[in-house]
Amino acid sequence: MAHPRGLVFKRLLTEDRDARLVVALAEDGEQQPAVVILSKPPFQESHVREILSGDFAGTEEHRNDKFSKHSLDVPARLNGIMATMICPANEVDVAKYTHQVKHFVRESAALYTAATEPFVRALPPKQLAWVWNILDHEKEVESIIDETEHYVMVPDTKWDQADAKQLHCLCIAKERGLHSLRDLRGTHLPMLRHTLAAGRAALLRAHGVTASQLRVYVHYLPSFWQLHVHFALLSCGGAAAGTSVGKAVLLEDVIDNLARDGEHYATCSLSFAIGESEPLFGRLREHLQLEPPAPPAGGAEGQGEPATKQPRRE
Amino acid sequence: MAHPRGLVFKRLLTEDRDARLVVALAEDGEQQPAVVILSKPPFQESHVREILSGDFAGTEEHRNDKFSKHSLDVPARLNGIMATMICPANEVDVAKYTHQVKHFVRESAALYTAATEPFVRALPPKQLAWVWNILDHEKEVESIIDETEHYVMVPDTKWDQADAKQLHCLCIAKERGLHSLRDLRGTHLPMLRHTLAAGRAALLRAHGVTASQLRVYVHYLPSFWQLHVHFALLSCGGAAAGTSVGKAVLLEDVIDNLARDGEHYATCSLSFAIGESEPLFGRLREHLQLEPPAPPAGGAEGQGEPATKQPRRE
Repeated sequence: MAHPRGLVFKRLLTEDRDARLVVALAEDGEQQPAVVILSKPPFQESHVREILSGDFAGTEEHRNDKFSKHSLDVPARLNGIMATMICPANEVDVAKYTHQVKHFVRESAALYTAATEPFVRALPPKQLAWVWNILDHEKEVESIIDETEHYVMVPDTKWDQADAKQLHCLCIAKERGLHSLRDLRGTHLPMLRHTLAAGRAALLRAHGVTASQLRVYVHYLPSFWQLHVHFALLSCGGAAAGTSVGKAVLLEDVIDNLARDGEHYATCSLSFAIGESEPLFGRLREHLQLEPPAPPAGGAEGQGEPATKQPRRE
Repeated sequence: MAHPRGLVFKRLLTEDRDARLVVALAEDGEQQPAVVILSKPPFQESHVREILSGDFAGTEEHRNDKFSKHSLDVPARLNGIMATMICPANEVDVAKYTHQVKHFVRESAALYTAATEPFVRALPPKQLAWVWNILDHEKEVESIIDETEHYVMVPDTKWDQADAKQLHCLCIAKERGLHSLRDLRGTHLPMLRHTLAAGRAALLRAHGVTASQLRVYVHYLPSFWQLHVHFALLSCGGAAAGTSVGKAVLLEDVIDNLARDGEHYATCSLSFAIGESEPLFGRLREHLQLEPPAPPAGGAEGQGEPATKQPRRE
């Protein structure tokens, strides 16, 4: 049986410093490829208590009158690492975990019509089968938190429902064919206002959460193309919960924009980050100017690096 | 000399699970209060190499045909903890690190006029002295990355300039009295379009960064009240870099909104998260309805918890 030890390290596939996570490609003793995800779990209070009361070795890195900074050698019992191992890993596994260059794209309404909309319409219908199963009460009925004429509310898959501070739910719109934010018009205002008010009321009833504790937003690009609204506690992880601008759009902003102009999302530009290996990126790329501008004729003079230098950042 | 060991743990002051960070209040041997910040540093590649090739004990938490999940006991040499200690800590230190309840507030134009604007206008001018010193070339001249008729570009203080993947710069607007997004009007469009284009060009020259690698945004609420635009690499930490919706607003969205309506930011609503102990919160609170609605007369019936239940989430 495979264990994440005695492996030969090949290379790092990707790294998320914020999440204290790295993914490495390695080989086991039988030269089978293994993808290993290493992560550092959050602190447990009982461990903090022991770490402070213990007498562990450490190195003082910095000190002034008031502050001191130390690197502490804490036993593994109080400071473990989680390892997830995929072995034997195939090419798809390796590709999935390999870092991809991302681009921050500004999608005009014209670019949506030319590239994104045809991509979304061509997605295989079975990709959304799990969504229709929830809306039709075919599956996951026991997980439904609330249901109205406009939506079904279920826990987000990232929320294990054990940690109340990570509360994160989705209201999936019942209206079929509402793929995303881009399909919303002024006629959807009653549904959207209902979703905001009724979703908040449901979470107050079910979990005692008040409106000012919640961030309510949609994703663009969404991870699945049936309109759904995220209700996440402020105490949820920022990066982890997908709340970045250029990904999350507040439902209150959506409502205000549509109230001002019912055609707002048919005409506005929207920004998002997209990886080069994502299928939609290929459709967008032909329309985008992603490289540095060409140098002026006669050559670039002056300080700094030449404008033709290839980007050296990811 | 104080060390973060042999302490008596008193209580957790706050926790940031995403950042793998906790702050504890403790007492040293002389019963002096100490604030101790514990954090888990990101992985180093050399450590990953050793962790995989080593033969460390572990516990298998889960296994199926393809995946297995393990808790690994890795020696402290490969998995240390950073501790920052403030000792003796005073009441202000403890208050600074104590978790505060945050609220997600929707600021209408009327609420801005009634609460936020008077608060901003009453801030002591010396709070911005360091900004004028940069704009006037009195200080930090050596850190200026770019300067035009409209802005001075400097590194964000969060960026140590050692890690290229964390590139994060600020363009501080030269026009005095532009406190924030709220002060922008259609007349500022040329300045804003210039800042976007010239700021991108400066980072291409200085660091080889192309436009699609950058997220360009303003903060509302800002951390200081002179308009400044963030230019941050996509590879910057999400949560750490303050890119959450309800804090960051994309400069391209600002420009589009003002092009559509020059009075947009004089009339729109804006959302932000604010802690209960922040001075502005006191001004906002009297205008806000932050508590759960009162129960209907006659008592609440039916499933779920009563609507009067106090919120049990932070």
